[in-house]
Amino acid sequence: MKCAIAQLNPIIGNLSRNAQQINEQAILAVQSGVHLLLTPELSMCGYPPKDLLLKDSFIEQMRIELEKLAQTIPPQIYLLVGTVTENPLALERGQKPLYNSVALLHDGDIEQIFHKRLLPTYDVFEEARYFSSGNQPNYFSIDDIKIGVTICEDLWNDENFWGQKNYEINPIKDLVNLKVDLIVNLSASPYIVGKQKLREAMLTDIAKRYQKPIIYVNQIGGNDDLVFDGNSFALNSKGELIAKAKACEDDLIYLDYDATNNNLFSTVIHRNFETEEEEIYHALVLGVKDYASKCGFSKVVLGLSGGIDSALVATIATSALGNENVLGILMPSPYSSSHSITDAEQLVDNLGINSTLLPIKNVMASFDNTLDSLFVDTEFGIAEENIQSRIRGTLLMAISNKFGYLLLSTGNKSEMSVGYCTLYGDMNGGLSVIADVPKTKVFSLCRWLNRDTEIIPENIINKPPSAELKPDQVDQDSLPPYDILDDILDRYINQHQSMVDIEDSGDDVAIIKKIVKLVARAEFKRKQAAPGLKITDRAFGTGWKMPIASRWYFDNS
Amino acid sequence: MKCAIAQLNPIIGNLSRNAQQINEQAILAVQSGVHLLLTPELSMCGYPPKDLLLKDSFIEQMRIELEKLAQTIPPQIYLLVGTVTENPLALERGQKPLYNSVALLHDGDIEQIFHKRLLPTYDVFEEARYFSSGNQPNYFSIDDIKIGVTICEDLWNDENFWGQKNYEINPIKDLVNLKVDLIVNLSASPYIVGKQKLREAMLTDIAKRYQKPIIYVNQIGGNDDLVFDGNSFALNSKGELIAKAKACEDDLIYLDYDATNNNLFSTVIHRNFETEEEEIYHALVLGVKDYASKCGFSKVVLGLSGGIDSALVATIATSALGNENVLGILMPSPYSSSHSITDAEQLVDNLGINSTLLPIKNVMASFDNTLDSLFVDTEFGIAEENIQSRIRGTLLMAISNKFGYLLLSTGNKSEMSVGYCTLYGDMNGGLSVIADVPKTKVFSLCRWLNRDTEIIPENIINKPPSAELKPDQVDQDSLPPYDILDDILDRYINQHQSMVDIEDSGDDVAIIKKIVKLVARAEFKRKQAAPGLKITDRAFGTGWKMPIASRWYFDNS
Repeated sequence: MKCAIAQLNPIIGNLSRNAQQINEQAILAVQSGVHLLLTPELSMCGYPPKDLLLKDSFIEQMRIELEKLAQTIPPQIYLLVGTVTENPLALERGQKPLYNSVALLHDGDIEQIFHKRLLPTYDVFEEARYFSSGNQPNYFSIDDIKIGVTICEDLWNDENFWGQKNYEINPIKDLVNLKVDLIVNLSASPYIVGKQKLREAMLTDIAKRYQKPIIYVNQIGGNDDLVFDGNSFALNSKGELIAKAKACEDDLIYLDYDATNNNLFSTVIHRNFETEEEEIYHALVLGVKDYASKCGFSKVVLGLSGGIDSALVATIATSALGNENVLGILMPSPYSSSHSITDAEQLVDNLGINSTLLPIKNVMASFDNTLDSLFVDTEFGIAEENIQSRIRGTLLMAISNKFGYLLLSTGNKSEMSVGYCTLYGDMNGGLSVIADVPKTKVFSLCRWLNRDTEIIPENIINKPPSAELKPDQVDQDSLPPYDILDDILDRYINQHQSMVDIEDSGDDVAIIKKIVKLVARAEFKRKQAAPGLKITDRAFGTGWKMPIASRWYFDNS
Repeated sequence: MKCAIAQLNPIIGNLSRNAQQINEQAILAVQSGVHLLLTPELSMCGYPPKDLLLKDSFIEQMRIELEKLAQTIPPQIYLLVGTVTENPLALERGQKPLYNSVALLHDGDIEQIFHKRLLPTYDVFEEARYFSSGNQPNYFSIDDIKIGVTICEDLWNDENFWGQKNYEINPIKDLVNLKVDLIVNLSASPYIVGKQKLREAMLTDIAKRYQKPIIYVNQIGGNDDLVFDGNSFALNSKGELIAKAKACEDDLIYLDYDATNNNLFSTVIHRNFETEEEEIYHALVLGVKDYASKCGFSKVVLGLSGGIDSALVATIATSALGNENVLGILMPSPYSSSHSITDAEQLVDNLGINSTLLPIKNVMASFDNTLDSLFVDTEFGIAEENIQSRIRGTLLMAISNKFGYLLLSTGNKSEMSVGYCTLYGDMNGGLSVIADVPKTKVFSLCRWLNRDTEIIPENIINKPPSAELKPDQVDQDSLPPYDILDDILDRYINQHQSMVDIEDSGDDVAIIKKIVKLVARAEFKRKQAAPGLKITDRAFGTGWKMPIASRWYFDNS
């Protein structure tokens, strides 16, 4: 039996377009003799649809599109489509009104509907808000082949692999007990660093233990802060990787299932990325490309300070949209170093992007004059530093508004963590490209970009980081060195370590306390930040839910 | 048996302070002969603690504080405290690691622990993210009185009242079957318009049907976007209201339970607010007061445009913090009408607040000059309008940064819905005070404020609303009249009506389509908005989870 994985990039909520995309893949697949075509979780509406699910008309339209799709696709194919269905017993039983489902389409009909059993409610996942859990194992048969169906999280409760239970039931065990021949999984699994290795390790473990072939299908594409990396793959019953789709691109790959010996074959194995940097870079490029295109932008603008953050973001934007669609704005102040301009110009040359110079000295003077009587007898400080950043933010938004360019924000995760960024200033933008990339990783990404030829000017990488908001300022005036800062932040934010745990690192206690307080104090800034592309398991986005008017950190640090 | 309700205002995460507050109430209560003291849900950590719950050290500290509290309070009192406890079987059973619990403290010990059974996952509630459900009815006895314990949502599944089941189990029925004498409920129920009437109607229904007295205890205080309105109350076994605590204030009220005839008595019944306007106004005042104080601010600043929104917010701020702690900034441009200044000055006089005049003409000119070469041959438009708003936003933030004042944002819900507001401009602020108040309600609140004496200058109420960002501009140039706009928005946003449903209102189809599109297009602005005080069941805050890069509205409207 020939199977195919359609690794699709849906647009959230664009049901007719998503259905059409599925149909196109079905036609292609049938031309190659495919019997069973798999698409990602919620391939009909895109993942995550969030509160669109609260609209009855949205659910109804999905039902209509699914019925149309069943009648549109070639009748000989078996197609698994991710969609949302109603729970007809919700009111009677006191359950949520919807299911996260998979529909089996064949021969003009919706032949079966399967419901997701394990609903994630951690990190960015909020499925208990919308869905009831399916309460029975999901499978169907083609000829005599019994195929178990799982939806994303249904796979993620392997007690042997994790050493603990994550949910009360294990859908895989149920399917094994039912003696399915083959297990398929329709996923929408967002990218984080190293996740593909984890997926492959976990499924290899499952395939080997139960001696079942597994086909795993993932969504690709950027949806707001989440990047879905694709990387769909298949394992034979020995747990050997026999097929792998592209990372961070649409794909359609073919497999053969041999019922006589319950085995799976393929010739397509796209390589995994070789380094963490390569992996992150491609995820960020996809995130920018899709956020821009799905929001209707073809061009982007960003401020080029001559620093490493904006240099990296300009490079990502160029990879995503082409150099002709990237506009860098140089906005020197009297506090800017001479190299801030020459370095930025060198970057512009290297990337071949457009640029404009807008000195902010005169606008600064006009603000100073306006505030003169109010600020008389006060010292130059944060207020004045922030004015510079906000002038730049206002100029960038003026260009964005005037010409319809998407403004990209360039702050890194280390800054966002400690609030070393200006709300309504350098934080401005529709998308915050490297908001989840720690500064030390910004450096390593730039070094990786320069592995063959200089893309990021070396002086940008080598000079001490500075916001240049007052004379001779460098970041290390007010922050510890970035390797120490990032280590403390990783322990505190990603690993949830307590003050006491972090002190075990040997870092200075006073510095740790200062950092922890800064993280808490910056909560109000992060609340108002642009969506930032998620690359770690603990990003400041959908999955970060912190109170602002809170005192925990202050009283206990 | 004498009982008391401690209607407390915790600070999220400030465990030692919250515990001390509970202890102080226990001492007071014992002095009045109280045997049983009730506090709100999670009174130890404040509700909602959000992702602080992911920190082991936070949970551990709560355990320590609870043990200390048990030993600190007078030994003769029975005290119910809301706290978080660990689920020791979580890993083994595949459950969430915590319970939302109530501890019964008495005689130096933690005598019993009860777990919340119904975990809300709608609107602003995300309890499935953190908690396992308790799986048994909760009760304890004092002498021969059997007291059933419920935690907030445990009450909200009365099939008879709602005409449907909201959850699979009903904790109240379980308690009735166990023949408890009295039912207590520890809640943290956020304010929305009319909610107190709903609470009283629902509990009256339950008390009557089961002939059980009910004591309902609610948290008070503002926590970021949520305002908890208190309004704790008690019903006797006939469903009659026999006690009611204050709305929007701390309170400690006493009740007597008579075991011989299973009845509850009290003499304290604070009145409910008489009008919706009075209710909303007090909730907003509490929200501002607590956000400021819990974030460490004593003074606020805001822009005074001479319009009705900023006038209302200035009045709320004055009620919350005192006129000496409110600074209004008047920032006229060449497009400002003469009355924009005179009206704002009249308001400043009426309220007795401080004000400063900062004309923005010169800063506007400096931006124009800076952008001149880039914007040559383009028309005056949105870009230029927004620059004015962003200059004002930057001036306000400069004052906030310089003097440590909290900046209040003044946009209303109608504007926030359709994006008739400037990101990084008038949207600037730490708290968006009336972000959930539709414009028509802004008017009625101002008329209510003026019921006895003129607080909001009449001209501010009567003149046509205008952003004054270009000559002779009024809001109705680009928006339908506010009564029509607010009706469409209510149908679309609060009632989740489809295009077809909204058309039944008789409103113009083209206008409806325009509004629906504007709402979708403004999603990126709302993503970056300050926390806005919630007063409706569908606010743009914690409970609003919409994708940005989405196409549903455009393709289907």
